[in-house]
Parts: sequence; C-alpha cells; structure tokens
Amino acid sequence: MKKTLIVGTVAFDEIETPKESSGKILGGAATYIGLSSAIFESQASIISVVGGDFDQKYLDLLDSKGLNTNSIEVISKGKTFYWKGKYHKDWNKRDTLNTQLNVLADFSPILNEQNSSAEIIVLGNLHPAVQSKVLNQISSESKCVILDTMNFWMDNSLEELIKVIGKANIIIINDEEALQLSRKNTLFNAADEILKMGPEHVVIKKGEHGAMLFNKNEFFTTPAYPVKKVKDPTGAGDTFAGGFAGFLSQNNDLDFDTLKLAVVHGTVMASFCVEGFGTSQMEELTKEAFQNRLKEFKKYTRY
Amino acid sequence: MKKTLIVGTVAFDEIETPKESSGKILGGAATYIGLSSAIFESQASIISVVGGDFDQKYLDLLDSKGLNTNSIEVISKGKTFYWKGKYHKDWNKRDTLNTQLNVLADFSPILNEQNSSAEIIVLGNLHPAVQSKVLNQISSESKCVILDTMNFWMDNSLEELIKVIGKANIIIINDEEALQLSRKNTLFNAADEILKMGPEHVVIKKGEHGAMLFNKNEFFTTPAYPVKKVKDPTGAGDTFAGGFAGFLSQNNDLDFDTLKLAVVHGTVMASFCVEGFGTSQMEELTKEAFQNRLKEFKKYTRY
Repeated sequence: MKKTLIVGTVAFDEIETPKESSGKILGGAATYIGLSSAIFESQASIISVVGGDFDQKYLDLLDSKGLNTNSIEVISKGKTFYWKGKYHKDWNKRDTLNTQLNVLADFSPILNEQNSSAEIIVLGNLHPAVQSKVLNQISSESKCVILDTMNFWMDNSLEELIKVIGKANIIIINDEEALQLSRKNTLFNAADEILKMGPEHVVIKKGEHGAMLFNKNEFFTTPAYPVKKVKDPTGAGDTFAGGFAGFLSQNNDLDFDTLKLAVVHGTVMASFCVEGFGTSQMEELTKEAFQNRLKEFKKYTRY
Repeated sequence: MKKTLIVGTVAFDEIETPKESSGKILGGAATYIGLSSAIFESQASIISVVGGDFDQKYLDLLDSKGLNTNSIEVISKGKTFYWKGKYHKDWNKRDTLNTQLNVLADFSPILNEQNSSAEIIVLGNLHPAVQSKVLNQISSESKCVILDTMNFWMDNSLEELIKVIGKANIIIINDEEALQLSRKNTLFNAADEILKMGPEHVVIKKGEHGAMLFNKNEFFTTPAYPVKKVKDPTGAGDTFAGGFAGFLSQNNDLDFDTLKLAVVHGTVMASFCVEGFGTSQMEELTKEAFQNRLKEFKKYTRY
C-alpha cells in the first residue's frame, strides 16, 4: 500500500438544483477525494484549512473513514471557504452564485515529514501556485503526482498552471477544459498537446459519456456507469480522482493496464456521488456496495 | 451462415458539410447496410427500387461486393429517390434541404421465394407500412428481424410504426429518437418502454458517444471508436446496422453475448463510414482493414 496525500479544499457548499436546495452542507474537493479514496483503505492524509465555523462533526466523519485529518488546519478566527452554485436541467452547466475564499485566501500548506514522504499526491483543484508549493516540499523519489484543475485557473493563472502541470505525472481534466487548455478542437489533439506540457498520462472525463486515458503511445476509453437518476453532480470529478488515486494506492505498478483499471474505479466511484445531494451518498458508501457495482459495471462493459 | 435480406433505399444523396459539397452521389440506407454487411461475406440480397437515371455502375459496385442486386427493381421511366442535406459544425444536427421520393412513392416490395426464406431481415429506414408488408411475406420460422426507423415516421405514421416495431426482434434507434418514441426522458426508461412494444432487444446509438444494448434483464454499453476526423456522418447509422447484421449472419446464436459483439462490430464499422464523404470509405473498406481496427478497438476498450 502506498502512502497518499490529498491537498484541496474542505469547505461549505450550498447547492441548488431544479428540484432541491441543499442549504449549507459539507463540501470541498479534498472532502470528496478523501471519502472516495477511503473506500480503498488508503489511509490518506488530508492537507487543508477551515475556519472556526467548521463543525467538528465533519472532521470526526473524515476521521471515522480512516482519513488522517491532523493536517487540516483550523483557523478559529477565520471562516471556512464557501461556494454556492446552481444547476439547470442540463447537468453539464452550472452557475456559481457566490464564492467566499475566507481562510483559503492565505492558505500556504507546510508539509510535515510524514506528508512530504507520500508516494501518491493528489492535488485537488486549488490555485496552481499553492499546488506547486506542495510539490516543492515532496521528498519521496518514487512519487506519483495526480493533478486536478479547472477552467478558472486557465482564465486567471495560466502561466502558473502550466508550470505545475509540467510537474505532474497524471492530469485529470474534463473535456471542455482539455479543449480550452490545449486550444485544440478534438479531444485527441487536446490530449497530445497536454502530454507535451509534461505529464505522462492525461485522463479526460466526459461526465455521463465516460472517460478517456492517454499517454504518448496508448489509449483507453470507457463509458460511464449508467446512473438512472442524477440528483447532484457536485463533487463527481473529485470523487473520480479519489477513486482513481485510491485504486493506485493499492497497486505497486503504474503501468497502462493498472491505470486503465484506475479509470474504471474512478468512473464507478463517481456514479455513487451523483446519486445523492452533496456528500450524502459518499458518506454512506460501503466497500461492499462499491465492489458490487464494480462487478455490475464489468458485466455492462466487457465483451 | 444465415441468409440475409436487406430492404431499404438505394438512392442519390447530395451532402453539404461546413467544408465540402458532394454533388449527386450514391446513397440510401440499403446501400450503406449492404456495403457494411458485405464485409462479413453475408451474401445478402437487397430489395429496393431505383429509376432509369440510376447509374448501372452503382449496381455493378454492389454486385462486386457479393451483394445480390437482382431484387433492386429498375423503373426506367421513373427517377431515383433523392435526398439533399446540410450539416453544421455540430455533426449531430442536420437540415434536410430537399427530398424527392420519386419511384419510392409507389414502392411495394414483393418477395421471391429465396428472399422470403431469409433468416436475418434488416428493415432499413422506410415507411413502416412498407416494412410491415415485407414482414408479412417472410416464411422463415427462425427469423431475426432488425428494424431501423427515424423520427419522421414518429411524427407522421406513429400507429403503423408501433405495429411494425411489435413484429421486430431488434430495433436500432438513436438516442433522441428513443426519447421521442417512448416519451421518456432517460435512455433507460426509454429502452424499457420500447421493449414493452414488442422487440426482445433495443440498441440505442449515441453517435460519438457509443451505443447501448438492452433487453428485459441485461444491459451492455460501449464507447464509440474514436474517429480523429469526421468528414461526413451520412449513413453512419445504416452502416452500424449493416455491421451488426453482418456479424449476426455468421453466428448461430442470438444470445446476449453474441449481440454485444454485434454492437461492437457495428460500432467499429460506423467509424469507417464517417471518415469519408458518402459511401467513399465503405466502397474501399477491406476485411483486413476492418479486422485491424476491430483489434485496435478491443485494445482501446478492454481492461
């Protein structure tokens, strides 16, 4: 088993869908990544920051899943990062109604010895300068850096983003973002272009249409698990990354066949996330339910 | 090997894409179905009708592929069915600019003994009353009827369409049409509803996003072959159906595992069609090129 380090937001979300409104609930990229990687007993450590308004029960929840929360800094005088978003009928589009950086504005992670020797590092969506700062503190030689990002940083911090992409082994990105980042108009050309930026592997997520895995010579594509009723897509991408990383934490190899399976595990994991509001399904998810759906997915996709 | 009968249009198409204009070229559902089923040496027979303006060279072409064209009636005083369409940047949308039914207006297929004993019957997109008329003449007991249709008949001849769907074993339909026909808003619910109309299997094509296969208890989903450059999507659905039927013609079984493979063969076949204008790629396609891409596709999708 490989030591995993997760860096990202632990936050409050408020979500509106055409049918429901969540109120203020637990959210954040590192939360989703952690909850899904926990299905693999990855014993991951989370680096993040929250404010004094953050409920201890949420930290207890993460602890109870076997996640190490010692490196989630609590700034008692500050307020937790807050995001409010609204989905429309087409789940692929959402509006951000409100973003309050709060304690995240000054987030400057310092890694202790244990964290800096992690072998798998998952950089959840954050300012690329913060992501870079984490990587500069990693001491492990045989590390695997998995990077997630979003269009916001392409619009606002492209230079720093390209720098940190150059240091990642694997980038996970959605289809629209891949096109934007690469300035290409097909996903194949986009992947080629992003591979030139440095990573050995590119994963392109296509939501309900599945995911693709590329390196310079190989390619893999899988459909998504067919979710019958989507309730809330928030966190699906982070959950994918957590499932992907969690699977890798249990494998010694990082060859293409292993990465294919990691994509499949991420895909199946994400299907649970979207079936509930916020983290609700991921909080309830058991190893057994995951394994059952994985088996079902194999039946659905193998021929 | 099973005897195959293909019923559908053999026609003239004129296609405009954002980059090219085809002029008047060979088209028609039965043409695409025939060319793709020919890759399997299915020795299929085509039932259709053309006018005196139809070039003999096109019939010679179909003959040269091992397709029996004796049942393509030539009405020398009539004109061949003509369709003109225009594609936009989004390949999924097209406008019909002109349709001239011509000899198709009075098409009333009479099956000879050989045709009526076919074991696999592919009903290409046609008026559902004409499709029904064919089925009423089929004598074979152990027949497999594969039905293709389109939204035009849902809008204009729904009652007759539902009748012929009830007589089909397998319906092949695209995602939007499945939603329209079933009046449901997810593909799973749509497939359930269409299965209730009679067919044992429903295949839903999703273009670049692959295809799904349903029966009452089982489900299969596959991504599409990743075509790097689409030139013209005309005929892709018919080519899928031809590859699907061609594969079945070489198999004794019609169980779910065989149908899964038929979907994969249809998917790979369709990828060639869209790489060229009109039938150009399908005219050139060799068994060897198909088998190579099939191997490649398996490498891309198996894990």
